Amino acid sequence: MAYDSIAAQIDKCKAKWIDRLAESVAIRSVSPSAEHRQEVFRMIDWTEKLMTSLGIVCQKIENPLGTETMSDGTTLPLPPILFGTLGTDKNKRTLLVYGHLDVQPAAFEDGWNTEPFQLIEKDGKLFGRGSTDDKGPVLGWLNVIETMQGLGIDMPINIKFVFEGMEECGSDGLDECLEQRKDFLSGVDFVCISDNYWLGKQKPCITYGLRGLSPFAIEISGPNQDLHSGVYGGTIHEPMNDLCWLLSQLTDTKANILIKNIDKMVAKLTEEERNTYTKIDFDLNGFKKDVGVEKLTSEDPKQILMRRWREPALSIHGIEGAFSGKGFKTVIPSKVTGKFSIRIVPDMVPEEVDKIVVDFVSEVWKGRGSPNKMKILPLGGTLAWLGDFKQPHFQAGVKAIKKVYGVEPDFTREGGSIPVTLTFQNLTGKSVMLLPMGASDDMAHSQNEKLNVTNYVNGMKMFAAYIFECAKI
Amino acid sequence: MAYDSIAAQIDKCKAKWIDRLAESVAIRSVSPSAEHRQEVFRMIDWTEKLMTSLGIVCQKIENPLGTETMSDGTTLPLPPILFGTLGTDKNKRTLLVYGHLDVQPAAFEDGWNTEPFQLIEKDGKLFGRGSTDDKGPVLGWLNVIETMQGLGIDMPINIKFVFEGMEECGSDGLDECLEQRKDFLSGVDFVCISDNYWLGKQKPCITYGLRGLSPFAIEISGPNQDLHSGVYGGTIHEPMNDLCWLLSQLTDTKANILIKNIDKMVAKLTEEERNTYTKIDFDLNGFKKDVGVEKLTSEDPKQILMRRWREPALSIHGIEGAFSGKGFKTVIPSKVTGKFSIRIVPDMVPEEVDKIVVDFVSEVWKGRGSPNKMKILPLGGTLAWLGDFKQPHFQAGVKAIKKVYGVEPDFTREGGSIPVTLTFQNLTGKSVMLLPMGASDDMAHSQNEKLNVTNYVNGMKMFAAYIFECAKI
Repeated sequence: MAYDSIAAQIDKCKAKWIDRLAESVAIRSVSPSAEHRQEVFRMIDWTEKLMTSLGIVCQKIENPLGTETMSDGTTLPLPPILFGTLGTDKNKRTLLVYGHLDVQPAAFEDGWNTEPFQLIEKDGKLFGRGSTDDKGPVLGWLNVIETMQGLGIDMPINIKFVFEGMEECGSDGLDECLEQRKDFLSGVDFVCISDNYWLGKQKPCITYGLRGLSPFAIEISGPNQDLHSGVYGGTIHEPMNDLCWLLSQLTDTKANILIKNIDKMVAKLTEEERNTYTKIDFDLNGFKKDVGVEKLTSEDPKQILMRRWREPALSIHGIEGAFSGKGFKTVIPSKVTGKFSIRIVPDMVPEEVDKIVVDFVSEVWKGRGSPNKMKILPLGGTLAWLGDFKQPHFQAGVKAIKKVYGVEPDFTREGGSIPVTLTFQNLTGKSVMLLPMGASDDMAHSQNEKLNVTNYVNGMKMFAAYIFECAKI
Repeated sequence: MAYDSIAAQIDKCKAKWIDRLAESVAIRSVSPSAEHRQEVFRMIDWTEKLMTSLGIVCQKIENPLGTETMSDGTTLPLPPILFGTLGTDKNKRTLLVYGHLDVQPAAFEDGWNTEPFQLIEKDGKLFGRGSTDDKGPVLGWLNVIETMQGLGIDMPINIKFVFEGMEECGSDGLDECLEQRKDFLSGVDFVCISDNYWLGKQKPCITYGLRGLSPFAIEISGPNQDLHSGVYGGTIHEPMNDLCWLLSQLTDTKANILIKNIDKMVAKLTEEERNTYTKIDFDLNGFKKDVGVEKLTSEDPKQILMRRWREPALSIHGIEGAFSGKGFKTVIPSKVTGKFSIRIVPDMVPEEVDKIVVDFVSEVWKGRGSPNKMKILPLGGTLAWLGDFKQPHFQAGVKAIKKVYGVEPDFTREGGSIPVTLTFQNLTGKSVMLLPMGASDDMAHSQNEKLNVTNYVNGMKMFAAYIFECAKI
């Protein structure tokens, strides 16, 4: 059987797949960092070359937004979007695969145990920035195609690819590009995205929901430049003190959002939805142990899943403009910018979220009575996404997982955001499914990001099995 | 007259003094930064060489503390303290001059208009890190000695020097070194320190008081590593939210400290002291304009001087461990450290301040009810200093200033801290005077630090005149 020989060949070539992932991890395609932007371009070129070698017809589409203006006024070029087409047989179904080639910032000094841009294999884990998010899954698809070609097995479907390089910044220009190139999306029957994670470490899952993201910056400025705290302390209204206070007004100790009317926007929980949570295999203690905390905001596993999947959450990410180094600096920072974001859920709409956040922060700020200048900047939100897991397309995923792992997957949602999911659903009008490769402890966006060797290898087999299932729908 | 020929020669050699300052500014002797620590050593060697060439007998005293342990557990060597002796004539008075050779961190990216470690002359101003704090004044003394030697004028006093390289970190090891080497201090008649600034931009002053400093760090830790805010947002208690809240509890909008009993430690204002404030030439609007704010914490110039000089102030300097870059990163930081300090005044005692701050923060934290771990760390405080400006030594300073500037200086205090002032007063039992070279807008510790060419040149003349006045006491 075709699948079995593919699976055997994938196992056999394991070292090659790991070397390929190492090569891609070494390209520091950190999209949020100005100094690494050119590496994103390089990563796209590298991938195009690999795809072309597999007979995938590639097109680099210039980013419709052209450049990005940074907060300091400088501009940066935006990377192109990489389109690929493998097969145009009208008698075959067409799958669209999305992935991203950029990664989050990472530095050894942040607390990594190894150099983040060097893939290190240890205890069956492949440590490196981008290993699981999202270079591993992207290469997984290409590795499967190479394997099938090597074995002379005919591809039973057409596959189109959309790979971008700005996902970690909010996919700048991608929506516009896809809007402009609807022709590329025509004829697509299913969309599959592998850019999320299992709920746990053992059991695979299929994901049908994502939270959206509403990012914000609060900028507080006072004196025209940083001041000596000895000379000026006590005489001026310090922006940093205002900012800490203002940020402290957004949530309570239990991580509840204090912004008025946020809760009214959240979809009511139906009985049917409530029941889905009782069936899910979720190890609350394992979850706690992985993050290293003794206490969560609830001790009920169902509540925790709901807080991750169907409730909004607000996180303060950091402050720009204050002293952030080691050691001590007796400075009064003159202008500080607090960065926070709200993960939004059905039925929240980013524009409405922006409005109530701006209104709330402005009102709270008025109550502060500080003469400093405050600006609250909504940075462009993205909607949550909710798919329908009863569709045949999702069942193709279920069968693929059963074939590789021998278990029935859970249907899960994710707390994170992949805004393009919704774009693909809207533009194709077809079913979008998230088929994760990595495990829950992969630590995307964090120190020591990794992908298990087994997840990488079995993930490829799952992709192969899924390709055959798609052909049968 | 000796003074007049010295003054003329100082003017004539202006370019040489500026070149010398440029050379010293180019040495990145940033003591608070681990990566630049070796440059502090280099700056000390450079100064020793210059002093030796002037016939000053130098001794590099090994730092008694040996090494410093950084917050990440690594250790750094501490620079030696540089002692110098010029003349040992028992029939002459002996002046001790103190200065420091290290500087605050600086980077072009912080908002400097020019490269901070390259001295740039523009509009009569010498821009560069350390130009005014404290390389300009240190070189001022040495330039005067060189000038007098060049003119064949006999030095009417003995001069001893203590130059250190850890002032910007809290003078690590200096007190211990001076304690151990009391022999070096014996025979000293007066101590002069030029490491502060005029009250305004036009009128010179002599300074008789300084605030002390009590620095603190609040460390809040939750999960064992940084987390993805999508995956984990809403389920855990975020350390950053706790820290912002805790920092917001320390002051109110008007920069009043909310820590209980702090105010009870402050010396009562006497009628005599109150009167000194009415005589001082202080331009409140100029002060506002320089810092670029429309509103201060008081509109009364006397109140503002009191807030700078005789009242405590609390500043939040920044947060370590959160995202501090440009752009956006959807991270939940796992461990964040807030750095703040209190400028302390008579009669506050650092050990007592530490205790009430620790007690207050601990009590407030208990009320928060967060399961995260909080540590409040006092980082070693230093007392305020108050000298007696009625002493003849201060009158020598007055006469020197009258000779150079033709005006009677104001007697001022400073909001900043030079802990060693008190050490010298205690160890010598003699009068310590602060004789500033730079102007109020020199922006020490900030972007675009500068020293006016006129302040540099006239400051040298003032040092020369002061040397002759000391000989007459």
